[in-house]
Amino acid sequence: MSARAGIVVTGTEVLTGRVSDRNGPWLAERLRELGVDIAYTTIVGDRPEDMHAALRFMADRGMDVILTSGGLGPTADDLTAEVVGRFQARPMELDEALERRIAEILRPLAKRWPNLDMDAMRAGNRKQATIPLGSTVLAPVGTAPGLIVPPLEPGGGPTVVVLPGPPRELQPMWGAAVQTDALRSALVGATVYEQRTLRLFGIPESEIAETLRVAERAGIELGKLEITTCLKRGEVEVVTRYEPAAREVYEAFARVVGGRHADTLFSEDGSTVDEQVAASLRKAGWKIATAESCTGGLLACRLTEPAGASDYVNGGIVAYDNEVKISQAGVARELIERHGAVSAEVAEALAEGARLRLGADVGVGITGVAGPGGGSEDKPVGLVWLSVGIAGRDPLTHSVNLPGARADVRDRATTVAMHLVRRALGER
Amino acid sequence: MSARAGIVVTGTEVLTGRVSDRNGPWLAERLRELGVDIAYTTIVGDRPEDMHAALRFMADRGMDVILTSGGLGPTADDLTAEVVGRFQARPMELDEALERRIAEILRPLAKRWPNLDMDAMRAGNRKQATIPLGSTVLAPVGTAPGLIVPPLEPGGGPTVVVLPGPPRELQPMWGAAVQTDALRSALVGATVYEQRTLRLFGIPESEIAETLRVAERAGIELGKLEITTCLKRGEVEVVTRYEPAAREVYEAFARVVGGRHADTLFSEDGSTVDEQVAASLRKAGWKIATAESCTGGLLACRLTEPAGASDYVNGGIVAYDNEVKISQAGVARELIERHGAVSAEVAEALAEGARLRLGADVGVGITGVAGPGGGSEDKPVGLVWLSVGIAGRDPLTHSVNLPGARADVRDRATTVAMHLVRRALGER
Repeated sequence: MSARAGIVVTGTEVLTGRVSDRNGPWLAERLRELGVDIAYTTIVGDRPEDMHAALRFMADRGMDVILTSGGLGPTADDLTAEVVGRFQARPMELDEALERRIAEILRPLAKRWPNLDMDAMRAGNRKQATIPLGSTVLAPVGTAPGLIVPPLEPGGGPTVVVLPGPPRELQPMWGAAVQTDALRSALVGATVYEQRTLRLFGIPESEIAETLRVAERAGIELGKLEITTCLKRGEVEVVTRYEPAAREVYEAFARVVGGRHADTLFSEDGSTVDEQVAASLRKAGWKIATAESCTGGLLACRLTEPAGASDYVNGGIVAYDNEVKISQAGVARELIERHGAVSAEVAEALAEGARLRLGADVGVGITGVAGPGGGSEDKPVGLVWLSVGIAGRDPLTHSVNLPGARADVRDRATTVAMHLVRRALGER
Repeated sequence: MSARAGIVVTGTEVLTGRVSDRNGPWLAERLRELGVDIAYTTIVGDRPEDMHAALRFMADRGMDVILTSGGLGPTADDLTAEVVGRFQARPMELDEALERRIAEILRPLAKRWPNLDMDAMRAGNRKQATIPLGSTVLAPVGTAPGLIVPPLEPGGGPTVVVLPGPPRELQPMWGAAVQTDALRSALVGATVYEQRTLRLFGIPESEIAETLRVAERAGIELGKLEITTCLKRGEVEVVTRYEPAAREVYEAFARVVGGRHADTLFSEDGSTVDEQVAASLRKAGWKIATAESCTGGLLACRLTEPAGASDYVNGGIVAYDNEVKISQAGVARELIERHGAVSAEVAEALAEGARLRLGADVGVGITGVAGPGGGSEDKPVGLVWLSVGIAGRDPLTHSVNLPGARADVRDRATTVAMHLVRRALGER
């Protein structure tokens, strides 16, 4: 029986959709790594009674641990510590050592903002240092401390881990939280699951559903595996979690997927296409450069996301305007006039221009109709031409008709481009 | 008393953090526009009992409407319709007209994927057409129909609106749902609130907390306003919701904010810095171009996000490698050698290169240390130099020390760049 956990994300700005929640997904991944089964993530506003009810619900559903994020700031609408204290029936108390510690942290900040109201700051400081009696304090990363608040009686309900809202405070603090006895004891007995990921590109999700049926008919005990499939940025991701004893069942299942989908299965070890492209470029010692029209730099962004990308990315041209395609990427004007800016010819010329002008080994060109305007019968919204060029080889050029709104078309086009680069680099 | 709503997002891939939820935030915004008060967004996996408990919880908390997203696909782990049917005590029934309609939709898809298993597809089709008796069907946008499932007795609990998971299916379907009598009657009596947004750039959130206290001391009845403040991509956003009768209280509050924060308040009408920059460029009839190093194209992406951006964006250079800064953006080699790539001089040269080489009126240059490597004592991780150049004017050049991880530094740097462009264009 694995430990069960719930996550309560607080904040009206998250609940009302003005800020998207990054903490729930991040904490969920961390919990799974620890073998903890996550049952719910609930987002609540800054109303104490709604938050209290959410904690109650999770306790009633048998959670062993509840993580909260947010509501630890200095302002009056930051109520998490107080609500959790009440939930665990622990009185609130000023921790003076903690108060001094926060004051130390605030000192340099006060210098940076010379007109700051110091009384307001001290009031906030005191509020942040007032915590439920019997909590374990997690040292502040920003100015807010985290808390581990156990039930009054051991086994009398869930342990609540109170974390700050900003991801860059929450993430290191979670690392500290898992080292504490207070959290460790709450997670005792968690089964450590294994998790494996397969990724496919270029098939509909329903085909995987059929493959599951095929595997079942072949006698593979899928009941021992927890398989989830999902469509993610144009790829199908198959994530399987199982107890270590079921490893052979998983291997048999993975072989069935590999057999039926050899042409579309591109990752058996969980690696992403981004990681594969980066690794191939590093291995070859090659540099890549882009010339993008409709994607407006999104592919260059994506290629430069990982640390160390400068080892294999030279840069790119965002050739949004046709004159920029001509002047910066060296696309011949007559090519645009004859074939139109969205064409195989212009995609190839963009790829070649990127490669030659930016001194790269691999060039990528993208040109398409992102919409909502600009489509025609011939070249509808969603049509994107992509090309990858490598010196001394024929270019790999491909068109796709992508569904969805402008942002979807742009995002999906970069995924298609990454896969085209992967193929061009000689990966499967 | 306004209607209360909850959102239940289903899917193990969302719960476990592999896919981030876009539907909860989007639906929350739509609900607020309708004057519906949102209390909870809960993410659950593909376990029917967990989902059922989440619906029960929201009903117990007095929700008038519950929206669900996801779990309407053709595969066996798509269980939403069935769980909602059981929750509302309505038996499941095959809707044959709906079955034929879905079959029609699938026909062209079957052509696109010639090796598709037709039996699997028909089984999925039938499953998707099996719905709780007494539901109102919302026409499929993809292949999945939506449902509005009322309680058995009017007033006997919440109405459940069942929507598909993919945002581009869910969003148009929500538009159809709000037109139905079934949903309208559930939302009867919703108070229509007014909502106003102020945005500030360049102050800490605690300063706004102090401004609230100042407003209160000045006798403004803040109790009549529902004010939430949050830090979002480096800006402070103050969103206020109130009943129409409290409009003057809001105006008085807004005047206090305007008086205390005249230098940092950049939006009083909810417009974003992106919208303001776009509008200023359009008004001036100017074109913009970028030359980015550490942000890798993120600013060009952001500028080209809105439809019609080609009216004022020429394009950009992603000058990741120093050689690209020299060859494509025309930065003098000796400038880089003398001052380093991360310097005021190189930022200015990038801005000028972007403007001149891409034939634009406004050029933006960004160069910085995104990290995690590459920092030094002089030029630590997070240091970013930015410059905006306009012909015949002195460049506006500025450095910032941005906190956070690589992705945060890159993202925040684009926000700083947008504000620098706004200032250069002569907005407040």
